[in-house]
Amino acid sequence: MDQKHIVHKENVRIDHLGIAVKSLAAARTIYEKLGLSVSPEEIVEQEQVRLVMVPVGESRLELLEATSEDSTIAKFIAKRGEGLHHICLRVPDLAAAVERLKQDGVRLVSDEIKIGAGGHRYVFVHPSSAGGVLLELVEG
Amino acid sequence: MDQKHIVHKENVRIDHLGIAVKSLAAARTIYEKLGLSVSPEEIVEQEQVRLVMVPVGESRLELLEATSEDSTIAKFIAKRGEGLHHICLRVPDLAAAVERLKQDGVRLVSDEIKIGAGGHRYVFVHPSSAGGVLLELVEG
Repeated sequence: MDQKHIVHKENVRIDHLGIAVKSLAAARTIYEKLGLSVSPEEIVEQEQVRLVMVPVGESRLELLEATSEDSTIAKFIAKRGEGLHHICLRVPDLAAAVERLKQDGVRLVSDEIKIGAGGHRYVFVHPSSAGGVLLELVEG
Repeated sequence: MDQKHIVHKENVRIDHLGIAVKSLAAARTIYEKLGLSVSPEEIVEQEQVRLVMVPVGESRLELLEATSEDSTIAKFIAKRGEGLHHICLRVPDLAAAVERLKQDGVRLVSDEIKIGAGGHRYVFVHPSSAGGVLLELVEG
């Protein structure tokens, strides 16, 4: 199977970068000083985070602050400190991409495509299959 | 001074993401499996790295492998493991942006704008001023 039939590279984009921070109020200031817009704060209960989005060209930076010590963001910061948490790529046909990756033995965090709060479909590729990067794939 | 006169947010882009990896050969495969193009390997002597670029929309992923134990990439991996190393934003007027950041007390890794191998101008904002992220700014 020709992988170019599965994912058309010209349609792949960086959807957003997830950045784990201790304080949204502190972390957002550098982007405001660069003249960028920062969205209002939003709470995502199921992930136990509050976040703001910083649109940058066709992508966004997602600043993530934990609302609970049980949040994966809190655990990440406890282990590695603040910083880049994941890269999210937008692909046109997520089911086809996931099928292709599974065939090739790529390790996914969960084999099932999940549905997020806003109805978006997503999977995470395990860092062990992506050079230490937690790689999220969304459809769009 | 109105910061919107310094940096026009609609012109800011994610230029690239730097990803520190132990092996380019291993790390590039996930992107190839997603159908993306990967550039030929290039060696940057002054940074003691070899790298490949993966174009993604208007941005690129830069996979970085150390060529020496003295490389900052080797030190990063020894301390934190493989993973995201820096975010590079492209801004239209770097000197103005740097002036603005300095006025606001933002900590830069080096106060001077540096000239890279291909003649591009760049500075790094220290992670302590950017939510734990090593933030590179380039002009263009």
